[in-house]
Amino acid sequence: MSETTLKEIAQKLGISITTVSKALKNYTDVSPKTKAAVIELAQELHYYPNSFAVNLRTKESKTIGLIIPTIVHHFFSNVIEGILEEAEKRDYLVIILQSNEKYELEKKQVGLLLNKRVDGILISLTNETAEFEHLNSILEHKTSLVLFDKIAKIVKCSKVIIDDRKASYNAVTFLIKKGYKKIAHFRGSYTPQNSIDRFLGYKKALEDHGITYDPNLVFLCDTNQDLIDAYENAKKIITENIEVDAIFAVSDLVAMGAMKYLKEAGIEIPKQIAVFGFSNWYVTELISPKLTTVDQPGFEMGLQTASLLFDEINMKKKNLPVTTKTITLETKIIEREST
Amino acid sequence: MSETTLKEIAQKLGISITTVSKALKNYTDVSPKTKAAVIELAQELHYYPNSFAVNLRTKESKTIGLIIPTIVHHFFSNVIEGILEEAEKRDYLVIILQSNEKYELEKKQVGLLLNKRVDGILISLTNETAEFEHLNSILEHKTSLVLFDKIAKIVKCSKVIIDDRKASYNAVTFLIKKGYKKIAHFRGSYTPQNSIDRFLGYKKALEDHGITYDPNLVFLCDTNQDLIDAYENAKKIITENIEVDAIFAVSDLVAMGAMKYLKEAGIEIPKQIAVFGFSNWYVTELISPKLTTVDQPGFEMGLQTASLLFDEINMKKKNLPVTTKTITLETKIIEREST
Repeated sequence: MSETTLKEIAQKLGISITTVSKALKNYTDVSPKTKAAVIELAQELHYYPNSFAVNLRTKESKTIGLIIPTIVHHFFSNVIEGILEEAEKRDYLVIILQSNEKYELEKKQVGLLLNKRVDGILISLTNETAEFEHLNSILEHKTSLVLFDKIAKIVKCSKVIIDDRKASYNAVTFLIKKGYKKIAHFRGSYTPQNSIDRFLGYKKALEDHGITYDPNLVFLCDTNQDLIDAYENAKKIITENIEVDAIFAVSDLVAMGAMKYLKEAGIEIPKQIAVFGFSNWYVTELISPKLTTVDQPGFEMGLQTASLLFDEINMKKKNLPVTTKTITLETKIIEREST
Repeated sequence: MSETTLKEIAQKLGISITTVSKALKNYTDVSPKTKAAVIELAQELHYYPNSFAVNLRTKESKTIGLIIPTIVHHFFSNVIEGILEEAEKRDYLVIILQSNEKYELEKKQVGLLLNKRVDGILISLTNETAEFEHLNSILEHKTSLVLFDKIAKIVKCSKVIIDDRKASYNAVTFLIKKGYKKIAHFRGSYTPQNSIDRFLGYKKALEDHGITYDPNLVFLCDTNQDLIDAYENAKKIITENIEVDAIFAVSDLVAMGAMKYLKEAGIEIPKQIAVFGFSNWYVTELISPKLTTVDQPGFEMGLQTASLLFDEINMKKKNLPVTTKTITLETKIIEREST
């Protein structure tokens, strides 16, 4: 790298090299005016201070890591957007890794981020993650960690979640109050906490309203192609004449997969079968009939998650004691045409 | 950070500290067997070598930067997924920044990445970017740069694009051959090359088939809420009785915004007005009528873009001359129900 030296800046401004260096490192004993002049000239000359050197001095990388199961998913895209907005505000960079719902990859990525000396790590766990040794190793390294959405309750770190069980309970109660009695649940995988909680909320709502829980009305949509799983399960309900008057889906995409089959089979939604989604993807408003769903605040989750992490990093920097927190975000039902 | 020392590993394995250090840095004079033993034990003990030290030695950060206008967009999500897959394969980390379609932010982010000493940078430009000084500064720093999708033709670096003009020309020709004569274009902003090229392809197709180009049939959808722009433009066509029998939209989302209004207004698609999208978002298959569109290979673009960058980084490492390339990816028409 051919680099304009500090010397050149010093000469042009008629100040010492030490002052230039201090100005670039934002030392307090350099006047704001000098700092501004140095920074302006440095930019003009495309001079960038060596960030690794800065790192060795401050022991900060001003970089955090984010491990996310999948990016091509509107909810996670929104979360990322929230995280990047918060990071931008605080001048942090974000290394983003996609675990592809694979536990082994997630474990490896934690290692890469620790190796990179990031100041903190944000993770939404894969559907496979059932062991948490790699998460504990982050804490052992005194690196800040915040889990969000797909979390592990037993790991001692801050968390940002929605109350999936309550959201799901409210959704199913809504359907029951509308008069639906044979409510199927298109559920997610068995491992993730949010998938478990949505199922438990469904079950509890039935029981609390005097409807016997029937395991035959629970259909698994757990592959990476959950849209197709949902399509096939809806097909099963129709072709095998399973008595169902509503479907409560674990996600909007699963709801849309079910709707796709029902529409192809000429089933009227919601007259013959109602469909209820989860997460309020903006596309749910564009389809016909428009999908009733639970609004899951992805962008807000991203902001809060990053904010918790940066607060923790700052506390540590000041050697203040860190207490972990769990933030539960509010959800609400968005009633549209499919119920 | 409390760190298990190299000494501990050396003692446990009965080898010298130098050998442990060399094994972790993958030196060739340590046997594969010893390397494996050292790495296994290091992992067990949660020992991670200091990556900044490694950086100072190899002058590599094994990190690249990606600046993207917006993440919450299926096309860009797919591109990111492709880039991350290629990076994962080559053991690189990716710092992702969102420019929010803002030129000033993009410029600042280039500075942050150069400051961070990334080995290379990938950018899809904002709609505002009309000056390229910041891109040239990347090249002056001898940092590898690849532009994709939204590019600047005059910047001397490798590029990955689709032939937007041709794709658009083919789409409009397809509509003309189907018998449509009053074809409106819902276009994107005036600055981005791909938006310009899609417009030019539309215009050329009309002219080549003896249809007079009418600027009154071109509607601008250029805000961040292009879905709403499209909705409003469709409303304008209907309420002002503008004679139109087909709409060729700059993106699927714009097409869906138009369809939303047309459906609300009771217009039959495609009988009264046909709609043609651009990019083949998987949602276009879930809506009714299913959208005819141009398949734009986002994931493939991500793979190719990252691959070009890594090849260039490797060439530079070996002090081989670097030649820039432009890769143009194929697109195809996906005919569905909306035309």
